[in-house]
Amino acid sequence: MTETRFDVLTIGNAIVDILARAEDDLIVRLGLSKGMMRLIDAAEADRLYTLIGPAIEASGGSAGNTAAGLASFGARAAYIGKIAVDQLGTIFRHDITALGVHFPTAPLEGGAPTARSTILITPDGERTMNTYLGACQALTEADIDEPTVAGAAITYLEGYLWDPPEAKKAFRKAAAIAHANGRQVAITLSDSFCVDRWRAEFLDLMRSRTVDIVFANESEVKALYQTADVPTAVEALRRDVALAAVTLGEEGALVVQGEATYRVPAYPVAEVVDLTGAGDQFAAGFLVGLTRGRGLTEAASLGCLAATEVIGHIGPRPAVSLKGLAAEYGLPV
Amino acid sequence: MTETRFDVLTIGNAIVDILARAEDDLIVRLGLSKGMMRLIDAAEADRLYTLIGPAIEASGGSAGNTAAGLASFGARAAYIGKIAVDQLGTIFRHDITALGVHFPTAPLEGGAPTARSTILITPDGERTMNTYLGACQALTEADIDEPTVAGAAITYLEGYLWDPPEAKKAFRKAAAIAHANGRQVAITLSDSFCVDRWRAEFLDLMRSRTVDIVFANESEVKALYQTADVPTAVEALRRDVALAAVTLGEEGALVVQGEATYRVPAYPVAEVVDLTGAGDQFAAGFLVGLTRGRGLTEAASLGCLAATEVIGHIGPRPAVSLKGLAAEYGLPV
Repeated sequence: MTETRFDVLTIGNAIVDILARAEDDLIVRLGLSKGMMRLIDAAEADRLYTLIGPAIEASGGSAGNTAAGLASFGARAAYIGKIAVDQLGTIFRHDITALGVHFPTAPLEGGAPTARSTILITPDGERTMNTYLGACQALTEADIDEPTVAGAAITYLEGYLWDPPEAKKAFRKAAAIAHANGRQVAITLSDSFCVDRWRAEFLDLMRSRTVDIVFANESEVKALYQTADVPTAVEALRRDVALAAVTLGEEGALVVQGEATYRVPAYPVAEVVDLTGAGDQFAAGFLVGLTRGRGLTEAASLGCLAATEVIGHIGPRPAVSLKGLAAEYGLPV
Repeated sequence: MTETRFDVLTIGNAIVDILARAEDDLIVRLGLSKGMMRLIDAAEADRLYTLIGPAIEASGGSAGNTAAGLASFGARAAYIGKIAVDQLGTIFRHDITALGVHFPTAPLEGGAPTARSTILITPDGERTMNTYLGACQALTEADIDEPTVAGAAITYLEGYLWDPPEAKKAFRKAAAIAHANGRQVAITLSDSFCVDRWRAEFLDLMRSRTVDIVFANESEVKALYQTADVPTAVEALRRDVALAAVTLGEEGALVVQGEATYRVPAYPVAEVVDLTGAGDQFAAGFLVGLTRGRGLTEAASLGCLAATEVIGHIGPRPAVSLKGLAAEYGLPV
């Protein structure tokens, strides 16, 4: 196994978030499922935009957010995702490369615009996402830059990549390259509705050892095993994958590896402003811990710390240096 | 004088802000004047973008921010400003119309892109602005929608409109329509460097009674009269315009009208996060007070309250209902 060039490569849908505050009754009137992500077409994105209040824009995309978090921790991060040649694409590229993230993906020319997700943030801080995939539909195997994958200790993939049809081929190609180079492959299950759409394939990825590490939250792991009981789901997960981290919101997180289980508490939060990016930043912290050889408990604590930071402000990426924050909390990386 | 259709029409450069945190040493290295606004061309905007960290985007533009603040107070607001047919223009139009602001200006097609201002926010909350005017250069007299101006009790104009050459003609046309309809005309001096560029013309606007109300901060009023002494500048201002409001940062604001002077204190601020929009929101509060027939002291307090809200978070427009906030503070509008 050669030396690594990157600690973590993340691959996902490259999205700019349009973040707007909304009262609960708007979520109800729009017929949305609070806390979930739904896919919409361009016409619905335009229609929805006319129904919401003023917004701010911030680069997002689950795996992009994780790459930003990794860079904020001082890790060597790379990212693969498809933007278009347009203003939102320029914003996405700027924000991720400004953090030092390697971003080798060629933008789409003359096709659909850069993806955007209209995110409604209710007073409880919960976010409800409406994603128009746009240029993400054009991510293909050709975008999987072999040297980048081969050089990354861990390749981390979004479950959301199962939505654009060509992206799942890209996902499988990346996993194959990683394993051929003795690297590890991680997946986040992304969203319980996404799990509902792709349950059989996600289970196959795990059971075929295409993925080595799984990230999930409670609703995703319950959806995966179609049970209302988290412990039941976690026991099933333990058998299906080598290592799994399950986030439990204000209860913190748990990690399962073989017969072992590790639990860590969440950090106290003064006010939950915006849950967007919480899971993505947990993954960043956990992954940085893993790649720095920390124990699983400490890795999970780094994840909880990063999640705590991001839910204290609007936007899905860290507003402060996570490396600095980790040092303050006695978890230097 | 016919009934008004709008309380206030604001006219200015329609800009999307790119807001990035920056340490003081970056401001120094870039050779920027902290707290000021400078105009840059597209090449410099692109170059600067490569030198700054991740950002968020929010609709801005001084007069646009004031229109948003007015709408947040529940006032009937209109806005004239030039965007392009592009993604940033779509964002600008959405954000201002979502608040109920009337925005009759046709977008520019096939020309320069929507204006953007790269704003660096230092740890003290001060903002340093680098504005590429883009489509704003195409604002002309033809964009001054006569019924809108005629129907607004007050037309409020940015000093920044003196920068794009055609816009000053638009400014004069709007002022003429307003006065022909028995309405009032207000100007903000915008920025001390802007005052340096256009001092003689600004003084002429005041002395010729083209404007009835002037908004300025300390550095702008000092620049206008080329004095380091605020009281001296204020006495000169008193002679040159019927009504003036001067913001004094944490010292609050003062209003001069003929021989009378009114002082109001600032509201306490837990933390100054981002000063972007402070003057714009002061103007919104003061103008809503005026149009509701409040006394000058109460109008200035409404201004200070709106400014306090906006400096507590990132972004130049209110994050909460200013109408609700005013009611909470015993200043219902």
